[in-house]
Amino acid sequence: MFVKRYDEVEKEEVNEEGAKNVEIQWLIDEKVAPNFAMRRFTIKENGYTPLHKHDWEHEVFVLQGEGALVDGDGNEHPLKPGNFALVEPNEVHQFKNKGKEDFVFLCLIPLK
Amino acid sequence: MFVKRYDEVEKEEVNEEGAKNVEIQWLIDEKVAPNFAMRRFTIKENGYTPLHKHDWEHEVFVLQGEGALVDGDGNEHPLKPGNFALVEPNEVHQFKNKGKEDFVFLCLIPLK
Repeated sequence: MFVKRYDEVEKEEVNEEGAKNVEIQWLIDEKVAPNFAMRRFTIKENGYTPLHKHDWEHEVFVLQGEGALVDGDGNEHPLKPGNFALVEPNEVHQFKNKGKEDFVFLCLIPLK
Repeated sequence: MFVKRYDEVEKEEVNEEGAKNVEIQWLIDEKVAPNFAMRRFTIKENGYTPLHKHDWEHEVFVLQGEGALVDGDGNEHPLKPGNFALVEPNEVHQFKNKGKEDFVFLCLIPLK
């Protein structure tokens, strides 16, 4: 077992096309996780992740700030601390910061 | 996809032998999760989970309060908000509240 703090893990800029002002920290990554990975995302002011889809799910828990989860019809589902979300495989989705402060959430994905 | 708040999910008392003052909320459970489940635990003052082991991992993120993760040698690894932990399959472990307020954390497990 191990115990760490999120700020011990390096923030990497997300350079994927369609992403703006997004950083990722791989808290529990494929080097150590048996089945699924825990990532911490920070979306800064005016930032967003790509509007895209893929064949794996996201399990999300919001830690800080105000954001939205955009669906394939362009509807924005508000996200605040205490909200959690499931994005199913092959669903179009995007995460956006809707406030002034950093929008921070955990996003877990399967490895297999 | 769906978005919910943790307080929309019923708290269930953990009645497992060796548990005291522990509640669980199944935020994303096996009815909807493709691969892994998200649970939110609340351990009240003087509470703890069973000291036990099993053949699946825990991925943990602390949300509130002060606690400890006890290992098989009886060592207590402190846990506060911002800490995360991996308990590997077959490792002996226990979660304890070490403070006055509720100790709250997410604990994710594989379904398969």
